Amino acid sequence: MSWSSYLAEREEEHLNELLDFLRIPSISSLPEHADDVRQAGQWVMARMTKAGIEHIEMMETRGHPVVYGDWLHAPGKPTVMIYGHFDTQPVDPLELWDSPPFEPVVKDGRIYARGATDDKGNMLVPILAVEALLQSEGELPLNLKFFFEGQEEIGSPTLPGFIAAHREKFACDMVVSSDGGQFGEDQPELLVGLRGLAAVQIDVKGATTDLHSGIYGGAVTNPLHALVQILATMRSADGKIMVEGFFDDVRDLTAEERAQLARVPADDVALEKELGVNGLMGEPGYTSLERRWARPTLEINGMWGGFQGKGVKTVLPNEAHAKITCRLVADQDPKRIAQALALHVAKHTPPGVTATVTPEASGAKPYLMPADHPGNEAAKAVHEELYGKVPYYVRSGGSIPFCSLFKEYLDVYTVNFAFGMNDEQMHAPNEFWRLSSFARAKSAYCMLLHELAKGL
Amino acid sequence: MSWSSYLAEREEEHLNELLDFLRIPSISSLPEHADDVRQAGQWVMARMTKAGIEHIEMMETRGHPVVYGDWLHAPGKPTVMIYGHFDTQPVDPLELWDSPPFEPVVKDGRIYARGATDDKGNMLVPILAVEALLQSEGELPLNLKFFFEGQEEIGSPTLPGFIAAHREKFACDMVVSSDGGQFGEDQPELLVGLRGLAAVQIDVKGATTDLHSGIYGGAVTNPLHALVQILATMRSADGKIMVEGFFDDVRDLTAEERAQLARVPADDVALEKELGVNGLMGEPGYTSLERRWARPTLEINGMWGGFQGKGVKTVLPNEAHAKITCRLVADQDPKRIAQALALHVAKHTPPGVTATVTPEASGAKPYLMPADHPGNEAAKAVHEELYGKVPYYVRSGGSIPFCSLFKEYLDVYTVNFAFGMNDEQMHAPNEFWRLSSFARAKSAYCMLLHELAKGL
Repeated sequence: MSWSSYLAEREEEHLNELLDFLRIPSISSLPEHADDVRQAGQWVMARMTKAGIEHIEMMETRGHPVVYGDWLHAPGKPTVMIYGHFDTQPVDPLELWDSPPFEPVVKDGRIYARGATDDKGNMLVPILAVEALLQSEGELPLNLKFFFEGQEEIGSPTLPGFIAAHREKFACDMVVSSDGGQFGEDQPELLVGLRGLAAVQIDVKGATTDLHSGIYGGAVTNPLHALVQILATMRSADGKIMVEGFFDDVRDLTAEERAQLARVPADDVALEKELGVNGLMGEPGYTSLERRWARPTLEINGMWGGFQGKGVKTVLPNEAHAKITCRLVADQDPKRIAQALALHVAKHTPPGVTATVTPEASGAKPYLMPADHPGNEAAKAVHEELYGKVPYYVRSGGSIPFCSLFKEYLDVYTVNFAFGMNDEQMHAPNEFWRLSSFARAKSAYCMLLHELAKGL
Repeated sequence: MSWSSYLAEREEEHLNELLDFLRIPSISSLPEHADDVRQAGQWVMARMTKAGIEHIEMMETRGHPVVYGDWLHAPGKPTVMIYGHFDTQPVDPLELWDSPPFEPVVKDGRIYARGATDDKGNMLVPILAVEALLQSEGELPLNLKFFFEGQEEIGSPTLPGFIAAHREKFACDMVVSSDGGQFGEDQPELLVGLRGLAAVQIDVKGATTDLHSGIYGGAVTNPLHALVQILATMRSADGKIMVEGFFDDVRDLTAEERAQLARVPADDVALEKELGVNGLMGEPGYTSLERRWARPTLEINGMWGGFQGKGVKTVLPNEAHAKITCRLVADQDPKRIAQALALHVAKHTPPGVTATVTPEASGAKPYLMPADHPGNEAAKAVHEELYGKVPYYVRSGGSIPFCSLFKEYLDVYTVNFAFGMNDEQMHAPNEFWRLSSFARAKSAYCMLLHELAKGL
């Protein structure tokens, strides 16, 4: 029996298993659901055992646990580690759900539940695919490890130390992530880049107390004006970042990269309408998509000081504050960027106030993998067969911690191979996943493992 | 018996009367003290009656009452209206007082109590002086009206309508205010100018909701950056206001005015030390004192938007706000300045956001009286006799509503003739007044009324 027949015969059984998995309210951000996260991990372990995966164990981190397993009987073949996560986002606002988030409903070819697309449905797929291969072919075409975590939705905070401590166990040739998505029902994508993050807080301090604006106004540096002056020097009016040294480590987009990005449909007018704004803006010389995916940013996330109440208070405040995050691209380093910001602030602080720049702990390195990485080539071959189309090479403007972590500690790239779609209400009420994606994904993973076995 | 002998014989009696007056906790800002404010007004009425003042009445405003009285038996002579207030500031922080604020203590030649210098002590003086003149000379050398209010410490909010409704009753040739002060124990001053006030709030609005800085950052106008950009255009780095039309109505300082201001000692190094700052700044071409007293300002009093908590939130906020007040000088108009600010904001708002400018109700016109106004000349003559020195001609960077109100509705200037000093903890714990000032003030008022009678 072929793996495809094996899968076809078990569609209903697999759906029921997924529904069981979705009933576990494994919300990682809420302490009262910590046991549910663990229970979801145990459910995964049981399903892995049934599939024929070996050396299954629950590994403790300083937060939610990681589930590991492997199948390592293909000597001379590459070793690939499959990534996924069994935790979910919270469910509020609950009143906007059409059915309870942890009581899955199948309707019109869709499975509605929290975690359906992100990531329980997608992460169950490689387990089922492996079972189908083992049952139909008696073996796997390559060596596999499995790394399923329970803290992705809170930013994987305890994974860095954990991965660093288990480098040998997780050693592999590449990672395939089941957490991600596709551009559309008839258009595949390959994710090749993520932006990193550098975050600082700026605190400007003037006189020892707030001052009367009548008595002192005009002769004393107002920390709010000083902050405005400092921040205004950081970007030009048209959105170019002016911080000295900021672009030193930025890899310019190659002509090929720009061509790849230009293939991705992006409608500025539709975006304006979606956001309710009367215009877009950004770094001159780049398209909106390039600005959002492949160029660094500097954004004030918050700013405050002085009087915020109703009416008038004629105060000359003695403090002003701003929070800034920069989205980074290869090869910018969060620490170096925070330093550049500190130098810039020091240089532009007017007399009469002091300004301090405090880097926040939550930096993240940017992630950029070669578009023609062998893992991408294998995924591309599968996508072309399944969709009859060349995938878009996309990036994400946000950060996904595990991609950077696997690169940093295991020195391997992560190929995104998942089948969620942007309209599936990830992180929102009425999350769903398409049954058609579930079926396609299982076949796709069987095909991908064979493709990857051909050579990494 | 001369007025001076009359006063000399009653020093202790007058002190005890002032202590009685100070025992009334007439805090105008606290609703639970409204009856105390009224009781203080009644105390004043009783004392005026005793002094021989006529037509005494408590007049209702829409807030705390005004006490009126007059003595109008000098046909052909000028009519002067004496101003003062019987309400006080609040007392918090109470724990910093060495003795209870409404249980006056006389110690080391000083009277300690809330209201001692501001303004109960100073406002009692003209009543006592009038009594001394009437008792010693049988009449006053000119016609007097008395206008004592109970809401000065909250900005006299209901006085504009009240004064406008009683223009005839309060008609006079000039006002003498008992609320104010002198430069030092051996240096008199004359107050010739007050700054006005224009206040606006700026609200910048972007997308319909807050956005994810990873997904949209770099392509969408951030309202915080837009606000920074707008505010940065309002002043040059060295403190010159750049708003178009802002200086259109500003009367340039004359050489004589600058010379008068230059006579006033002002120590920038001492000011820096007092405020705890490492430098001063302000409009180029002017001294610190000129900037604080005689030049307009534009100050951000408050600014806010986005995330203000601990740590990082990678949000691209959809709103940003700022509160601005401008201190105005003659002949700037609060309404025209608010319009100039609105035009400036409209001109400098980048695409992708909207900005609205809302004027606040609490505007105030600037006040500038001729240094050689006959009232000032009379006060100068008294000061020269009392101190043996020419007074400094000073201004205040703040606003005093009643000076502008009397000018606007009665078309008369207000001569500041009071004997508080800056070190007397006005508005702060352990407020006090000097007994020596009390004695000097009574004589000074007797002398002033004779000087004013010589001709206005």
